[in-house]
Amino acid sequence: METAVIGLGTMGMGAALNLQRKGFAVTGCDLRGPARDELAEAGGKVVARAVDLPGNLEVVLIFVVNAAQAEAVLFGAEGCAGKLAPGTVVISCTTMAPEAAKALGARLAEADLLLLDAPVSGGASGARAGTMTVMASGPEIAFAKSEPVLTAIAGKIWRLGAAHGIGSTVKMVNQLLAGVHIAVAAEALALGIRAGAEPATLFEVISSSAGSSWMWQNRVPHILAGDDTPLSAVNIFIKDLGIVLDQARALTFPLPLAACAHQLFLAAAAHGEGSKDDAFVIRVWQALTGIALPDRAIA
Amino acid sequence: METAVIGLGTMGMGAALNLQRKGFAVTGCDLRGPARDELAEAGGKVVARAVDLPGNLEVVLIFVVNAAQAEAVLFGAEGCAGKLAPGTVVISCTTMAPEAAKALGARLAEADLLLLDAPVSGGASGARAGTMTVMASGPEIAFAKSEPVLTAIAGKIWRLGAAHGIGSTVKMVNQLLAGVHIAVAAEALALGIRAGAEPATLFEVISSSAGSSWMWQNRVPHILAGDDTPLSAVNIFIKDLGIVLDQARALTFPLPLAACAHQLFLAAAAHGEGSKDDAFVIRVWQALTGIALPDRAIA
Repeated sequence: METAVIGLGTMGMGAALNLQRKGFAVTGCDLRGPARDELAEAGGKVVARAVDLPGNLEVVLIFVVNAAQAEAVLFGAEGCAGKLAPGTVVISCTTMAPEAAKALGARLAEADLLLLDAPVSGGASGARAGTMTVMASGPEIAFAKSEPVLTAIAGKIWRLGAAHGIGSTVKMVNQLLAGVHIAVAAEALALGIRAGAEPATLFEVISSSAGSSWMWQNRVPHILAGDDTPLSAVNIFIKDLGIVLDQARALTFPLPLAACAHQLFLAAAAHGEGSKDDAFVIRVWQALTGIALPDRAIA
Repeated sequence: METAVIGLGTMGMGAALNLQRKGFAVTGCDLRGPARDELAEAGGKVVARAVDLPGNLEVVLIFVVNAAQAEAVLFGAEGCAGKLAPGTVVISCTTMAPEAAKALGARLAEADLLLLDAPVSGGASGARAGTMTVMASGPEIAFAKSEPVLTAIAGKIWRLGAAHGIGSTVKMVNQLLAGVHIAVAAEALALGIRAGAEPATLFEVISSSAGSSWMWQNRVPHILAGDDTPLSAVNIFIKDLGIVLDQARALTFPLPLAACAHQLFLAAAAHGEGSKDDAFVIRVWQALTGIALPDRAIA
């Protein structure tokens, strides 16, 4: 089966390498030479511009940064939509507003192309292992045609219905929760430190209590280790919670906690932490109150 | 070993019944006749006023509602502190501000009495089963003397240090996280419903994703079942987040997310939901936006 992956970042590279390894014909597309080199070394074909992709593709996966880039690689001056055969399946794995996913589906339908609205999660390790989670909605025929591709890249495929926008909605709700959980983990840990609790013990107790969350267990160890190397950066949640808040504003829907968490990530970025690990939103409290955070040299 | 349990609510009754079952001499103290009757039927002794407790107690457990009540049952006109022998251990399981726990420890020390600052969690089922979690700090001698009692009532005993206030600090941090996680679960589910996601599917996807929390998994099913019978009520989190915010204000420590969640529980109570299950803070969004929540009759 002839496939393409547009956008060879962490998640896209993981998808492309799994397809290559599992016997699919893969062409990767990325402006960045080192990304193309990595896939080429694994045996894949590569191009720099979407317009240069092969014309006989059956499934095109899109892993770009946002809705505007997804539009550009399909319908821009150097986009590929014009050369795709009718019935080709486009799988959009980019996090975008549900309204943007619906608009993309409508525009592709005009060109007789099929869309799966299919955001992903699972992080770098899941992408490389071929076990990412896909939250997908779209027409049944699109699922049927792309089944082997989805199975090759994902450990879990959620089939969320025929309408575009549902996949992106579920992803949006997940990002809302994830962002607030990171910010409140920082707020709570900071209070505990200020009140005299030993951070590592506090982490251990809460992790086995009703106050725990996936993000508490995943992110607090970064703070305890004093390691702000970004696995996912503060700026990513400024972007993702921004998408959530923009979409909710369009729906006239109030999100006080998401808005508050967004402000805390903005405060961290204002303090110079934008490119640091997102758990270091806790430096907002450090800067304001002078609490001592665990030191990498000591940890 | 001669023990007493003051306050036979859900958690106190669980502790008293486990002590009785495991061979301790237990006297329960509660103003409420039905609570006394339940323990008496199980073979325990009972009194209505703390001043009427036996004089030969070795360990006194306090499960009252707040710090003021704990002070009253010890040092009030009908309190028991005056009749306790020097060296008796008082285990305070009440959720209170760390400063209140420190003050209680100091006042007991003046009377040659020992305090464990030992808030609990684990809910009704854990209390009855003798598997509640105890987050305790206090002098080593107090731990040593009360070891058999703690083992009889708890599945997990955290020993958090010698200083009073640490147990209460850890509990405070847990309640901060728990309260925010309930409120953001409601906010996120409400947005998902408004954006067109199917609530039960959304619950299932998020429960296995990075947006999950202990509270998401525990409370969202109440909403899906349309069952607002209070396992823990909106008013409890108005109280507990109020303790957290008061304590943080005393430390000049900003908690924007906890303050926002507190306002949401207050909004729910203003709308008449104070005595309903805490997950029904989601009715704030129902009232404002008209979203349809799952119906108990349909579910």
